[in-house]
Amino acid sequence: MSRTTIMKKPKTKTLKSGSTKISKKTIYFFGQGKAEGKESMKSLLGGKGANLAEMAGHPNLRLPVPPGFTITTEVCAYYWNNKKTYPKGLKEEVEKYMKRIEELTGKKFGDAENPLLVSVRSGAKKSMPGMMETILNVGLTEKTIPGLVRLTGNTRFVYDAYRRLIMMYSDVVMEKAAGVEPGDDMGIRRQLDKMMDEMKRKKGVKEDTELDADDLKKLAQDFKTRIKEVFGKEFPDEPMEQLWGAVGAVFASWSGKRAVAYRNIEGIPHDWGTAVNVQTMVFGNMGNSSATGVGFTRNPGTGENEFYGEYLINAQGEDVVAGIRTPAPVNEFSRSEQSKNLKSLEQTMPRIYAELDQYQKRLEKHYRDMLDIEFTIENKKLYMLQCRVGKRNGIAAVKMALDMIEKKLITPDEAVMRVSPSQLDELLHPIVDPKAEAYTKPIAKGLPAGPGGAFGMAVFTANDAVRWAKEGKQVILVREETNPEDVEGMRAAQAILTARGGMTSHAALVARGWGKCCVVGCSTLEVDAHSKTITAGVVGIASDTCGRGAEPPALDEPEARCSGRSAAVPKEVLKEGDWITLNGSKGFVYKGKMPMLDASHNNEMLNRFLKLCNSIRALKVRTNADTPVDSANARSFGAEGIGLFRIEHMFYGKGSEEPLFKLRKMIVSKTPEERKHALDDLYPHMKEDIKKTLKVMEGLPVTIRLIDPPLHEFVPHQKGKMEELAQSLSITFEELETRSDSLRESNPMMGHRGVRLGITYPEVTEMQSRAILEATAELLKEGIKVYPEIMIPVVSTETEVLHQEKIIRQVYAEVVKNKGVKPFKYSVGTMIEIPRACLVADRLAQSMEFFSFGTNDLTQMGFGFSRDDSGAFLPEYVAKNLLPADPFQTLDVLGIGELVKIAVERGRKTRKDLKIGICGEHGGEPASVKFCHSAGLNYVSCSPFRVPIAILSAAQAQIEKPRKNK
Amino acid sequence: MSRTTIMKKPKTKTLKSGSTKISKKTIYFFGQGKAEGKESMKSLLGGKGANLAEMAGHPNLRLPVPPGFTITTEVCAYYWNNKKTYPKGLKEEVEKYMKRIEELTGKKFGDAENPLLVSVRSGAKKSMPGMMETILNVGLTEKTIPGLVRLTGNTRFVYDAYRRLIMMYSDVVMEKAAGVEPGDDMGIRRQLDKMMDEMKRKKGVKEDTELDADDLKKLAQDFKTRIKEVFGKEFPDEPMEQLWGAVGAVFASWSGKRAVAYRNIEGIPHDWGTAVNVQTMVFGNMGNSSATGVGFTRNPGTGENEFYGEYLINAQGEDVVAGIRTPAPVNEFSRSEQSKNLKSLEQTMPRIYAELDQYQKRLEKHYRDMLDIEFTIENKKLYMLQCRVGKRNGIAAVKMALDMIEKKLITPDEAVMRVSPSQLDELLHPIVDPKAEAYTKPIAKGLPAGPGGAFGMAVFTANDAVRWAKEGKQVILVREETNPEDVEGMRAAQAILTARGGMTSHAALVARGWGKCCVVGCSTLEVDAHSKTITAGVVGIASDTCGRGAEPPALDEPEARCSGRSAAVPKEVLKEGDWITLNGSKGFVYKGKMPMLDASHNNEMLNRFLKLCNSIRALKVRTNADTPVDSANARSFGAEGIGLFRIEHMFYGKGSEEPLFKLRKMIVSKTPEERKHALDDLYPHMKEDIKKTLKVMEGLPVTIRLIDPPLHEFVPHQKGKMEELAQSLSITFEELETRSDSLRESNPMMGHRGVRLGITYPEVTEMQSRAILEATAELLKEGIKVYPEIMIPVVSTETEVLHQEKIIRQVYAEVVKNKGVKPFKYSVGTMIEIPRACLVADRLAQSMEFFSFGTNDLTQMGFGFSRDDSGAFLPEYVAKNLLPADPFQTLDVLGIGELVKIAVERGRKTRKDLKIGICGEHGGEPASVKFCHSAGLNYVSCSPFRVPIAILSAAQAQIEKPRKNK
Repeated sequence: MSRTTIMKKPKTKTLKSGSTKISKKTIYFFGQGKAEGKESMKSLLGGKGANLAEMAGHPNLRLPVPPGFTITTEVCAYYWNNKKTYPKGLKEEVEKYMKRIEELTGKKFGDAENPLLVSVRSGAKKSMPGMMETILNVGLTEKTIPGLVRLTGNTRFVYDAYRRLIMMYSDVVMEKAAGVEPGDDMGIRRQLDKMMDEMKRKKGVKEDTELDADDLKKLAQDFKTRIKEVFGKEFPDEPMEQLWGAVGAVFASWSGKRAVAYRNIEGIPHDWGTAVNVQTMVFGNMGNSSATGVGFTRNPGTGENEFYGEYLINAQGEDVVAGIRTPAPVNEFSRSEQSKNLKSLEQTMPRIYAELDQYQKRLEKHYRDMLDIEFTIENKKLYMLQCRVGKRNGIAAVKMALDMIEKKLITPDEAVMRVSPSQLDELLHPIVDPKAEAYTKPIAKGLPAGPGGAFGMAVFTANDAVRWAKEGKQVILVREETNPEDVEGMRAAQAILTARGGMTSHAALVARGWGKCCVVGCSTLEVDAHSKTITAGVVGIASDTCGRGAEPPALDEPEARCSGRSAAVPKEVLKEGDWITLNGSKGFVYKGKMPMLDASHNNEMLNRFLKLCNSIRALKVRTNADTPVDSANARSFGAEGIGLFRIEHMFYGKGSEEPLFKLRKMIVSKTPEERKHALDDLYPHMKEDIKKTLKVMEGLPVTIRLIDPPLHEFVPHQKGKMEELAQSLSITFEELETRSDSLRESNPMMGHRGVRLGITYPEVTEMQSRAILEATAELLKEGIKVYPEIMIPVVSTETEVLHQEKIIRQVYAEVVKNKGVKPFKYSVGTMIEIPRACLVADRLAQSMEFFSFGTNDLTQMGFGFSRDDSGAFLPEYVAKNLLPADPFQTLDVLGIGELVKIAVERGRKTRKDLKIGICGEHGGEPASVKFCHSAGLNYVSCSPFRVPIAILSAAQAQIEKPRKNK
Repeated sequence: MSRTTIMKKPKTKTLKSGSTKISKKTIYFFGQGKAEGKESMKSLLGGKGANLAEMAGHPNLRLPVPPGFTITTEVCAYYWNNKKTYPKGLKEEVEKYMKRIEELTGKKFGDAENPLLVSVRSGAKKSMPGMMETILNVGLTEKTIPGLVRLTGNTRFVYDAYRRLIMMYSDVVMEKAAGVEPGDDMGIRRQLDKMMDEMKRKKGVKEDTELDADDLKKLAQDFKTRIKEVFGKEFPDEPMEQLWGAVGAVFASWSGKRAVAYRNIEGIPHDWGTAVNVQTMVFGNMGNSSATGVGFTRNPGTGENEFYGEYLINAQGEDVVAGIRTPAPVNEFSRSEQSKNLKSLEQTMPRIYAELDQYQKRLEKHYRDMLDIEFTIENKKLYMLQCRVGKRNGIAAVKMALDMIEKKLITPDEAVMRVSPSQLDELLHPIVDPKAEAYTKPIAKGLPAGPGGAFGMAVFTANDAVRWAKEGKQVILVREETNPEDVEGMRAAQAILTARGGMTSHAALVARGWGKCCVVGCSTLEVDAHSKTITAGVVGIASDTCGRGAEPPALDEPEARCSGRSAAVPKEVLKEGDWITLNGSKGFVYKGKMPMLDASHNNEMLNRFLKLCNSIRALKVRTNADTPVDSANARSFGAEGIGLFRIEHMFYGKGSEEPLFKLRKMIVSKTPEERKHALDDLYPHMKEDIKKTLKVMEGLPVTIRLIDPPLHEFVPHQKGKMEELAQSLSITFEELETRSDSLRESNPMMGHRGVRLGITYPEVTEMQSRAILEATAELLKEGIKVYPEIMIPVVSTETEVLHQEKIIRQVYAEVVKNKGVKPFKYSVGTMIEIPRACLVADRLAQSMEFFSFGTNDLTQMGFGFSRDDSGAFLPEYVAKNLLPADPFQTLDVLGIGELVKIAVERGRKTRKDLKIGICGEHGGEPASVKFCHSAGLNYVSCSPFRVPIAILSAAQAQIEKPRKNK
């Protein structure tokens, strides 16, 4: 389900009231080579339950799964639709199934001699945050403790299990029932933690493991006393009471705040419900012939087809992930720097390892995907506790997908669906080591404007960036916001950080175009270019939205670590030359130098994968590029043309300032004569630049957009440059200032720009058309086939395009005549970026041969959200769930998408074969690419480094919703 | 046909090719009590021809019209569809009809003894600029001259007629045939004029009339020599050749550049064609028993039911209007200051006057409207040359309409249709005397932002305006652009003039709200507040659009007089205290004090007329008002509620600065605590103000819009005020500057404003809602019935309105409880001013009880035209015919109207009885009001002084397109 469906059900926070149709069968058994359910029953049994059933019961598998049962998701739905009651007969069913487990295990629930303990876990169709996870050791009571001590011969283990049960149960069951959200600061969990810390302090020890059996026994007693004080009732000592308490807590957690918020965002229906899994406990901590571990059927970091895992002797599952003891490798392939001296499972328990290896192989073959498995060895007996499709990084995802096709394990379509766009992106950029990031608190969070990670010394001006870089230093350019004059410095820097601006601000656009790491709109930072300092942890009036927007709680960890969300982050001042690290894929800013993972991507692998995608997709992919270098780069990624070549961009970041200087001269011209002169001067530069790019794109179409931005953007801001310019125009500095001021606008985005310049200064359109068409004619004469498409920007009326088209057609006729070439192919089209243009698309298509959606501006004007200013409120809109996503990042299908659809429909009504593309930033964003596919666009165009992403997304879109014109 | 249909046929510049169906009858006779045509045949005969036929032939009239005939418009269509050829047999028909005239007059065309002369005139269904007007004296040749001299005994007269024929004919027939547009600088007309000037110089005389017969004879000879040189052929000396040349020139002029442009703008189909009228010449200049004159059947300046006209003894028609001799009054009623000593026609030729008076009475009765007539007396014989519905000013229009209903001459519907909105507007404001304006060149032209005329001394700051006004001086406030801090000064001034800004700029909005004269966006003026000077005639880079936009030629006179269009206007500097005069209805700026016409409107008459409109219209009319005074004013004009009460406006121009100061304190608050404190402080002011306005509008709905504009707009710009503010907040000046800067935005119109403020600062919405609802509760307790409607501005998503509605409903519940009142009626609605809101209107209507279109912003964002910056290009768009009108003045039906229709349709789909209005500036613009009527809106809302205009427009809309829910 797409993210954009969120808004459809914002009010359905609980399941609809009234009774629910419920199947007679409410419980499904699994274990001991048998199962009533199977993997395909995820909707009914949840992911966890279905996988347990599959592992236990499928003829191909029949793995040793500790026996248990799953209460269906239907029961959860019934529970919420019937005032938190259970369907009739459920109690008896549970008892029946408990009995079945008792029979299989020979243990008895609540028995003093040979007690059965169970775990209780939630498990919906998809996992989601905020759900009650697990309660272990259910069934441990004053009565059953002695029996378990006798059976295990390990008093400490039993009391440790008991205190864990108490801590977990009191938190998620008792406190929840008392109406407190889990994790509350003043909650019971915090109190019990404190008591345990207190005991460690008294004993002078640091680790939990240093507490002995007596300590733990006393602690359990103290816990129960405190619980009585807080809740006014005893900690339940009846196994069945514990069991029902845990089951109820799972159902209750389905409607917890975080879970509901998450489902709203992800568009998950609230009536799915969660299942409950009740399963026999097995213990990996019953001494040295017991162990517990986790593994992957292939290496999730590299994709190599080798079993990869870690284990701990005499430990419980959570110890492996807790990081208190260093886990050992299961085999040689899994050995790391940390674990180089530890014995592998293969070495310590060769028989069990062989059995495990066989299981994992069987599982992968059966599931036809890399799996993440959990296992426990209890007294030399291996149990499989869980299996699910394993998480992997980008390189591993691509490698596995390709390897599995080769082995005919999966189809090409499946392989393409296995790699997410963000995984593919990992292959293109170095990234901050995720392990290091997990333990480091960022000093700020902004918008993820340019991908990958980078570190460098902070510099505050473009000039400094250039100078320091020349001295061989790695720098990050830090600015309040950037403007075109900063481009040289941006290129010299490793990455760019700005305090203002949105996903389509100048910095973001430029950085993304280069595939350069960039974080923008970091509104909690105060950047002072004068004193060359960054102050972090500042919550200003315009930006205190972040600090205030504390509800609903942040949904994922990194958010929660955001300094802007936590008043506790101290004010901190960084100076010029201080090291900072950026994660441009997530928007985090860190102090200091963080370890990086080199992209070191396997180009060959990337190319193979993209070729696969190309064989599937219907939507074409072009690139937004303004230089021959960028164009060639994108072409190597597979771009099928240029969808956006911005004439004005050619004047920046070129090394030589001469063309820019001449452009500025043109802009501040006062009389038609001055302007004519400046245009003549500018002409050769423009023609040469266009020619170079056209040549690089030989054989492919190149859409060249006529000058677009407000002229004032080009006027230099630095005094020195202003003086130089004034001199060259033989006017005074004051006169230049007056001219420059007359170009200043209150709302430049809606000002004198785009086609409006072409209307008031037809000679500027004429010059640009001539440069494009003469460059074309000259290349054609050299035998180089080029296909220019001239695009008119910022159009709102049919008359505008007619006016401009006339100029272009006339120039064409002149060029053909003067250059003595045969009539050649070129086309004239328009950007669709003004809401009105969508509504009159039928008229525009009368003369225009192609449309290209400029969805940045269309979003800007469709929402009335200034992309440069929306930082003051848009993050809060997303945080408060008023919008599913930043519409500058992910195309807003409901509103802006509607405009797109209207324009496509009306445009094609007039001109059936109208070529339609998109060249806004959305052209490289996966969800938006999918929308473009279904809206029937011919192509998307995006920054060179997003071309692979777009190619993959287009292929996935075709698989999900096949379109005819493949 | 509405103006908005213009764009439909922009390419049809000529008639479609191929043959045309043409009636057999191509010519219609008129004259001597007979006519083949009649008034209702305007499409076929053109307006002029149809009226001539009516006058000559209708049994009620049968006036003495010089005989002639009309070649139909079908012939013109044929001519253009058939390569400029005439239908077969036309030549013979023309000859036949010429013969008929010869028989009737006893004269012969081309006869040496008793020659017949004719005039040839164009005449389409509607008159339009750019058409060939008239060629007089056709048939005058070397051969016929002596005969005419004999007949008239006036050699000078005959040669004068001859040189006039040569000048006119060579210009409009010969030169046109040579492919030159009439009026060309290097054209033949200019050359002949120079030759005539040269002759006057040589003779040492100044006036044409001082040239004698011999001079004119020589001149005619010289003219013909020059013509031979220029065109390579003789001036035609054959009467029939002259006649056909003139007829062809009329048809040719149908496709002249100006005529085509005009038709495009006015939405007139290009296939109408023009008719040609050929009519016997009669001469008012045959001595003292001849005369010529013009008249109106009622006084066009006052509406009094008296024959009103002027005449000149021994003169030709053009002499009356040329202003060389002072015309005499036809009767005592027509006597003016200028003509007080001249003898009236009634005195000099009582018999003829009586005949004329009888004719004019007959005509008015027959046409049931005030007519404009032309007559000529040739040797004591009266001829009626033309009649048409007469132009009139506003007061006359209203008076005549009302008088004619009273006399049962016309129906109420007809009366309403007889008064144009701009005529009605004249009754509301003093105006610049049109006679004086006709002879004065403006120093600049801007946008007509506030109606009426005014003069005053130029002042350059709001403070100066207040100070000078206190000293009893009349001032005009001249600013680059205004901001809210100028409001006091704007109120003190007679009028406001700005160099920047569009029709919805701050100055325009405020002035219009007060009905105050205002001209904005005068981009050819350089306003320097520092040196306190205005420099006129400056053509800067950003504004040289005006100077460059010379094609197509300006369509109406005032445009042509615009200094911006004429490079010849000298640079001129005005200082503080210099007198200037503004025409705010047309946008002209004059140097010095111009005579004014007092509105002195007859309130009683206005009210009677509005009552008439009220009895007809379906669309309701509300007002945009922010103060009790304005509200009361609008209510007196007939406003049926307030459609827009802008909370933030209450803080300006109130005399006391205290509330504004408190608002500012709130805005620059940094912490929630500071803001809370500021809000509490502000609360009583807000509640009191709202209460006062609600009370004035007792019994009527009042829509109150929550705070809308970007906060930075409220921050003071003056250092003194900044310091005061900093002090009151106990922060440093620098700190305040930092806070203020953090509110600054790149594109504030699309920034942190409207509902976005309410989302990030819910407490601000809460406070406003409380003020509104407590004010309501308190008034209800006093027994005063009030109906507040709370309106959420700048909405783009459904989630926004849900978020805000929740706050408002909660406050309502609290107010009802705390104030101890019964549940009361109030509603919550939203502004529709963001394009996206139109597309999701169905979702918005789920919770919103009313919509109000904010078409200023909707136009702004729909077009991407910043209303503050569009001055740089929008005037040129209109001048170049890229847009039919400034869309901020007249709603763009094609694009923005489409958004409106989508929103209406989708909104009502969800909520059938959704109340929908418009509160943008378009709500008081006639064409837009008509659109709102047909789009099914419930009401329009406009500035108080536009309420009468809206009422009239609504009534006219209902008459033109009746709607059920009247």
